Amino acid sequence: MPIANGIREALGSASLIRKMFEEGNRLKKQHGPEKVFDFSLGNPDVEPPPDFHRALRRLAAEDKKGSHGYMPNSGYEETRNALAAKVSQDQGVRLDGSCVVMSCGAAGGLNVVFKALLNPDDEVVVPSPYFMEYRAYAANHGARLVPAATLPDFSLDLGSIEAALSARTGAVLINSPHNPTGRVYPSAVIAGLARILEAHGKRLGRFPYLIADEPYREIAYVPVPPVLAAYRESLAVSSYSKSLSLPGERIGYIGVHPEIRDKEEVLGALAYATRTLGFVNAPALMQRIVAELTDAAVDVGVYARRRDCFKQVLDCAGITYAEPEGAFYLFCQVPSGGDDRAFVSHLKSHLILGVPGSGFGASGWVRFAYCVDENVIKSSAPAFKKALDSWQP
Amino acid sequence: MPIANGIREALGSASLIRKMFEEGNRLKKQHGPEKVFDFSLGNPDVEPPPDFHRALRRLAAEDKKGSHGYMPNSGYEETRNALAAKVSQDQGVRLDGSCVVMSCGAAGGLNVVFKALLNPDDEVVVPSPYFMEYRAYAANHGARLVPAATLPDFSLDLGSIEAALSARTGAVLINSPHNPTGRVYPSAVIAGLARILEAHGKRLGRFPYLIADEPYREIAYVPVPPVLAAYRESLAVSSYSKSLSLPGERIGYIGVHPEIRDKEEVLGALAYATRTLGFVNAPALMQRIVAELTDAAVDVGVYARRRDCFKQVLDCAGITYAEPEGAFYLFCQVPSGGDDRAFVSHLKSHLILGVPGSGFGASGWVRFAYCVDENVIKSSAPAFKKALDSWQP
Repeated sequence: MPIANGIREALGSASLIRKMFEEGNRLKKQHGPEKVFDFSLGNPDVEPPPDFHRALRRLAAEDKKGSHGYMPNSGYEETRNALAAKVSQDQGVRLDGSCVVMSCGAAGGLNVVFKALLNPDDEVVVPSPYFMEYRAYAANHGARLVPAATLPDFSLDLGSIEAALSARTGAVLINSPHNPTGRVYPSAVIAGLARILEAHGKRLGRFPYLIADEPYREIAYVPVPPVLAAYRESLAVSSYSKSLSLPGERIGYIGVHPEIRDKEEVLGALAYATRTLGFVNAPALMQRIVAELTDAAVDVGVYARRRDCFKQVLDCAGITYAEPEGAFYLFCQVPSGGDDRAFVSHLKSHLILGVPGSGFGASGWVRFAYCVDENVIKSSAPAFKKALDSWQP
Repeated sequence: MPIANGIREALGSASLIRKMFEEGNRLKKQHGPEKVFDFSLGNPDVEPPPDFHRALRRLAAEDKKGSHGYMPNSGYEETRNALAAKVSQDQGVRLDGSCVVMSCGAAGGLNVVFKALLNPDDEVVVPSPYFMEYRAYAANHGARLVPAATLPDFSLDLGSIEAALSARTGAVLINSPHNPTGRVYPSAVIAGLARILEAHGKRLGRFPYLIADEPYREIAYVPVPPVLAAYRESLAVSSYSKSLSLPGERIGYIGVHPEIRDKEEVLGALAYATRTLGFVNAPALMQRIVAELTDAAVDVGVYARRRDCFKQVLDCAGITYAEPEGAFYLFCQVPSGGDDRAFVSHLKSHLILGVPGSGFGASGWVRFAYCVDENVIKSSAPAFKKALDSWQP
């Protein structure tokens, strides 16, 4: 019997990232894991910090009555309060626990925000390239992505965002540090964006929400400026998938500007969307763990070393890339102006796995994730060199 | 700024269950928890079994590398294989791990199934009364609930289901043991339903999916027959929220009939929906725990004693109810044919919390959840008596 039409179409071009992830697992079984250079998925290989394991062991031993039961849909009060302190610091505004909604990762958080705030046919303006899942998230709730071009170095082009705004614009979605380009938006640019949104709102009577998707905030080589401080109608969505290396546990949060218009209604809508989309609440045990780990920091030095190592490999092979300021991706130009899917497929025949840029709205580019062991990166050098030598676009 | 229109409307009549849950917390703070008789939420007070705690402690101590990372969207292979054995036994069909998709509880599982299989404007036929969240789950994906009346004792009325089928019917959703009525559908009735769906499918060329929502399968006082064995186009959705008392951890699963039409496409669509709705995967740690606990059984005797105790309280107060065969709810008639919301509000003034039946599509009824300590039930007797003495519909 039929599946949903929308999904049949989407499955045809199913997530290139996930395809590569599963292809990678197959190749590793076939050739041995040490022979495959898998840079496809943002699955951090850095283990969660010792504090995480300590908290998990203590809570497991504690066996507190009722600790795996329901709680309010927005999460435990203690967790929300702990996160409020962190979000306040990150975002340069002072918010309390009522402005935090715990979510099943940032992917869950974005779906909750879209469901809560967007009407069918609303538009979500997003700088391009962008994380390919955004398109599906918007479509889930009847909304539509409107990509806005970025500058050649992938920094924000405020003019192109302004031109993309319309009466239908429900939100502008930014992601900094950025997947796949590694770009971090400086505060002057965010302030400029806020001014554009303010002016647009005053003109049309509808202020677009500014949604900051920030799962990579803790993984950056330059300061990541606040977003909420710049614009009142803003929300930050983040997770512990990358910073605590817990992507499988699905724990994240939404921070809402403390003076957002119709605040109570917005918070009610976020809780309602959390419940009815079937999340119900973020996983209980992880909520209790992250409440204790708001200050646990990822060792960015590890990623910086990997980045430098990978840059060397690419430099040797003659591949150019955008200089990353954060996250753990290298976004590379396909050599000799070739097709990105063909190049990815060529690399795969040398057991190197990356993701074609066309999935991110940037054909001619390829993304490599360097959240893998430095040895894998180092050992990939000969394969890269060999692949490049035989590359004919 | 505005929230989504659909949510503004829904918030007006926000979940009566959740409202009561939060009202209950308020009353407990005001009057002391021992003074409030909270029968509002299906939040099991029975603790998870010792096996759960043992597994959690062992996995926490083990600290296995990569154990909190991503895995395929449908879940760990070992978990899916373990669940396949259980679903095969429960459902009287032989399925392997490929037919199991791990989900964030049954609420997440139902949203995934609806998203994967329904098209906008499709209809989902559901026997009424029904769990109130179904309406929102269907609406999330552009589908519409079509309630079909049940018989006076709330058992299935096959004629009314048949009459509710149309060319738009994408699925029939049944829930046994049933929330809120406690009904368990016998196998002859399920076989009858299957015949109706087969005939409908042959006539129109579209076989409606039969979706069995079964979070209460383990909590029953009569045998719960299989559903998948009766009808090929069927899926079972369940969770460990009730049977292992883990509602806050959001761990459940979808079992797909091994011979469902277009099987690969259906499985692909379920994985896709899991990913793009933002679940990404069911929480990793809980997946590893439930893989070891497929045979862990809830002590149904505890619930049976509470049920009997509650029945005595109701009998004394002169309140009639549907005889429950499973789950942990008593569905009661409002005395003297009164309004259910007025009755619930009257009970609340006596610090007794229940949920009005109108939320379930059954005005004139009230639901009490007896997943609370037997002492709470016993101690509520005088309050029930007093409330009934002063009840004027």
